[in-house]
Amino acid sequence: MSKAQPMVELWRGDRLESWHAGHAVIWGEGGAVESWGDAGTIIYPRSSCKMIQALPLVESGAADAAGLTDRQLALSCASHQGAALHVEATGRWLEGLGLGEADLRCGSHEPYDRDERNRLIRAGDAPCQLHNNCSGKHCGFLTATQHMKAGPEYVEVDHPLQRAIRQATEEVTGETVAGYGIDGCSAPNFAMSLAGLARAMQSFAAARDTGDGRQRAMARLRDAMATHPEMVAGEGRACTELMRAMGGRVAIKTGAEAVFVAMLPAQKLGIALKIADGGTRAAEAAVVALLVRLGVLEPSHPMAQKRLPGVQRNWRGIETGGLRLADGFI
Amino acid sequence: MSKAQPMVELWRGDRLESWHAGHAVIWGEGGAVESWGDAGTIIYPRSSCKMIQALPLVESGAADAAGLTDRQLALSCASHQGAALHVEATGRWLEGLGLGEADLRCGSHEPYDRDERNRLIRAGDAPCQLHNNCSGKHCGFLTATQHMKAGPEYVEVDHPLQRAIRQATEEVTGETVAGYGIDGCSAPNFAMSLAGLARAMQSFAAARDTGDGRQRAMARLRDAMATHPEMVAGEGRACTELMRAMGGRVAIKTGAEAVFVAMLPAQKLGIALKIADGGTRAAEAAVVALLVRLGVLEPSHPMAQKRLPGVQRNWRGIETGGLRLADGFI
Repeated sequence: MSKAQPMVELWRGDRLESWHAGHAVIWGEGGAVESWGDAGTIIYPRSSCKMIQALPLVESGAADAAGLTDRQLALSCASHQGAALHVEATGRWLEGLGLGEADLRCGSHEPYDRDERNRLIRAGDAPCQLHNNCSGKHCGFLTATQHMKAGPEYVEVDHPLQRAIRQATEEVTGETVAGYGIDGCSAPNFAMSLAGLARAMQSFAAARDTGDGRQRAMARLRDAMATHPEMVAGEGRACTELMRAMGGRVAIKTGAEAVFVAMLPAQKLGIALKIADGGTRAAEAAVVALLVRLGVLEPSHPMAQKRLPGVQRNWRGIETGGLRLADGFI
Repeated sequence: MSKAQPMVELWRGDRLESWHAGHAVIWGEGGAVESWGDAGTIIYPRSSCKMIQALPLVESGAADAAGLTDRQLALSCASHQGAALHVEATGRWLEGLGLGEADLRCGSHEPYDRDERNRLIRAGDAPCQLHNNCSGKHCGFLTATQHMKAGPEYVEVDHPLQRAIRQATEEVTGETVAGYGIDGCSAPNFAMSLAGLARAMQSFAAARDTGDGRQRAMARLRDAMATHPEMVAGEGRACTELMRAMGGRVAIKTGAEAVFVAMLPAQKLGIALKIADGGTRAAEAAVVALLVRLGVLEPSHPMAQKRLPGVQRNWRGIETGGLRLADGFI
């Protein structure tokens, strides 16, 4: 616990108000290039590992058999915000499988998308499982499950799909999984070291579509995310806005409790970071700072500016303080 | 920064996922009774000091001249959630002063109260300044300003009201203020040590309505908060639910960036705590643990159970983990 390194500070007036410590690793072809905090810390990657969880979907041939588009593959790696386009896309996906919303096992929550949230409120409708930020991943799970002719309880840890995900996870991280927890969407989430996650992201970054089956699957998922950023999160969200700002050259993904990963194909680098207290504002600022440092994100881009350390304003637009990077981090 | 002590952990499965460090002080008649982390750390108390900011309102005679009720005094110390009852009460208060919503200087934000939020969305209405969680405090500010015959820009740091608040702050904390920041509601927020805030809370706790003017004002504000908990926050919120659970015997107040204070009249104790990373979930768990330990909150009460370290469930009601107190804290 004590090895987390101060990374991001919140200042108000001329005084430090709050601060966030964490861990980060940049992984290259030869191993760790640079790290902060403890690269060996064991974390739950949460939604940041959805592209790993989607590997069996592609590698089994299920994605091709179902005729999935890159847009759907991006959605299978998404924590979307339940906007109309996400709800329509997942609804049609299930229809194509001959399944329905009730076959999902992710549960329901109010969508993060304000337009869709307001539409539901005006109509007096309750959110359904399609609104769950993980419904795209679960559509991918159902597609793979159907292809495997496996049972409907696809989130149980001993289901053939979850066993395949565990195996893929161990292969790409180079580690035996360190147990698992149940995620917000009821799927098992396999624990791993932050270094293992960074190593996996490096494999995704370096994968070529002319390589072996694993490489082709990785490159396809990575490029689907980078070129369909609107499917991976949604308007106003960090993943979508930052991937757009990087022009499809880099894929990034957030996870609950302040995990963030990035895949940089040109540099063949993978990044994984975790803020120890789960503070998303700090994870976003830290990943932006790393992407700027590595030269793939233009610091003057409005979407970078929005999350870079800088000025914070209150409800009346008055400057109150801002985020800063802590001494010793970058 | 390094002296913050681990206080609250989030576990998932059988593994620590995230953790929060912070500072806490219990202050008694003779000084600090017990502390964790660094009692001398300088913090912004944010909304946790609203009862201090309300002292000039009562002590100047403005509250009595305007015929304010205890319900209104509770609202002057509130971070309310903009529910219908809060909007009505602040609207009528301003009307009684011959003022209107445009005289407020707090800005607008979407109310936290779901019913009121949904009503606005259905009606196609925008939130107004009455919905701002600080509008009750600002009504108190306007009442005091009117009584002082001071100018309308009552949130400027050199306005007579803010100078009176600065003086009261220094008297109750026993410290010279360590500068100030601009709060979310545009009012100055004076920095102080956590120990100074705890000391102030002890004065509020020990104040008698038979004492001097300062004591009577403190007792009146404290008791107004404890006996009108619905005005201090709102349904579902920690301050309201926990004060109800303690049956009006203890007053508590949260502040942004994970500050929490408590005033325990029977024990003549004050509590102040700050989670270093600003994580509200940890501040709530920590204050509940302290109130239980001091014997004023029944740990089996549903409102305590809701925030005590324990089980956390996901969207489908499946147990995923829970909060725990860190070793060495309580």
